[in-house]
Amino acid sequence: MEQLTIVKVGGKIVEEEQSLKQLLTDFSKIEGKKLLVHGGGRSATRLASQLGIESKMIGGRRITDAATLNVVTMVYAGLVNKNIVAGLQALEVNALGLTGADMNVIRSHKREVKDIDYGFVGDVDEVNTHLLGKLINEGVVPVMAPLTHNKQGDLLNTNADTIAGETAKALTDNYEVTLIYCFEKKGVLKDENDDESVIPHLDKATFNSLVEAGIIQGGMIPKLENAIEALNAGVKRVIITSATAIHGEQGTIIHN
Amino acid sequence: MEQLTIVKVGGKIVEEEQSLKQLLTDFSKIEGKKLLVHGGGRSATRLASQLGIESKMIGGRRITDAATLNVVTMVYAGLVNKNIVAGLQALEVNALGLTGADMNVIRSHKREVKDIDYGFVGDVDEVNTHLLGKLINEGVVPVMAPLTHNKQGDLLNTNADTIAGETAKALTDNYEVTLIYCFEKKGVLKDENDDESVIPHLDKATFNSLVEAGIIQGGMIPKLENAIEALNAGVKRVIITSATAIHGEQGTIIHN
Repeated sequence: MEQLTIVKVGGKIVEEEQSLKQLLTDFSKIEGKKLLVHGGGRSATRLASQLGIESKMIGGRRITDAATLNVVTMVYAGLVNKNIVAGLQALEVNALGLTGADMNVIRSHKREVKDIDYGFVGDVDEVNTHLLGKLINEGVVPVMAPLTHNKQGDLLNTNADTIAGETAKALTDNYEVTLIYCFEKKGVLKDENDDESVIPHLDKATFNSLVEAGIIQGGMIPKLENAIEALNAGVKRVIITSATAIHGEQGTIIHN
Repeated sequence: MEQLTIVKVGGKIVEEEQSLKQLLTDFSKIEGKKLLVHGGGRSATRLASQLGIESKMIGGRRITDAATLNVVTMVYAGLVNKNIVAGLQALEVNALGLTGADMNVIRSHKREVKDIDYGFVGDVDEVNTHLLGKLINEGVVPVMAPLTHNKQGDLLNTNADTIAGETAKALTDNYEVTLIYCFEKKGVLKDENDDESVIPHLDKATFNSLVEAGIIQGGMIPKLENAIEALNAGVKRVIITSATAIHGEQGTIIHN
């Protein structure tokens, strides 16, 4: 099966001109089929603040009322997405910016209100790979903003890690998928105070024992649980690394 | 040859919830292949004002400095475009939002500075119909925001009438194209004080004689010149009508 590399980058990298430029150059050099998923939270918070809209976050998730939905739609699908697309086009990468609403690529439903009302936040129901796969085969490189829709006319704010994971899982029927999650550190660290203590390889059993031993903790646990869920669904490998190392020369490789 | 209907709607229609809803319902009922081009100037002016950015217009064209380019990118490609896409998806129209940067659909160059520096404004060089045509054949309905790019990394603000006209011309190789320009009036008026005095048919010779007689004047002249240019380039017919009549039951039909 043909290879497909899916790279997820957070907001910080794509929101600063220099780091964005470097990322796009690095991404353009990845060989074969590829797809980029991006965030944009910092810019959304900044725009919201300029418009007098308070940004409320719970557990790292943005409470998305109607005004905030407009802000994230402008920032994620407009400002961040289209600047990435234009930047990649300049590097001869045939980028196509997408939200989940475009071609109905990702349908979701509004998150049920339990303890917290997250507002216009979507949990993914389905990734439609029919046209997405055809476009990738034509050499198109999808650039996905963290927005989905409920097919009833509402856009919904959806976590970019989730978009990357769900898209990776859905495309395993067509491709041998490598999923790269970029974050601030070089990889999963054995000692969180030592940036060089990257664990080069992790499998499920090792992950579990490291969690039990208290070595992997905090925000890294859900990230790794996502990774393992992706592996269980057929993704070939998940790499957790820094945005400056998306060619895989460092970072933590997670496999079955 | 198969029919393709291209509808261009201005900002006002797509920026108010009720008129947008009606437009999308009407548009969804157009049979056969179709494509929508939209504006969004009023929302851009509003957002700019909220952000303390002055909107400077010369002859109806927006002077687009770097801050204004960010505003129009957020509004056109984000807020307006994605709400249209989500709205059409709810009506079972498989919409795909595009700027000219996406799949390099419309390449332009930054307008040369003569008397006026328009800033980041693009004049169209080329419409790439290869993938666009394939997607339309797959049943995808492109929804185009009035932004292009120079393939050097810059997004450029481009008039929506121009986007519609150039796209229509480029697609005449693949389709028999009908181009519908929506505006506030029911069509081209014989008497601008009488909204019912719509001229039902216009050909080039009649257009010229009506301009000479002073019957067609003002902002309608460049609109009609665009229309005639499109006809000269192979577009089958151009219809000028109100957004509430995009099924062609009224309005002015311009033909060779």
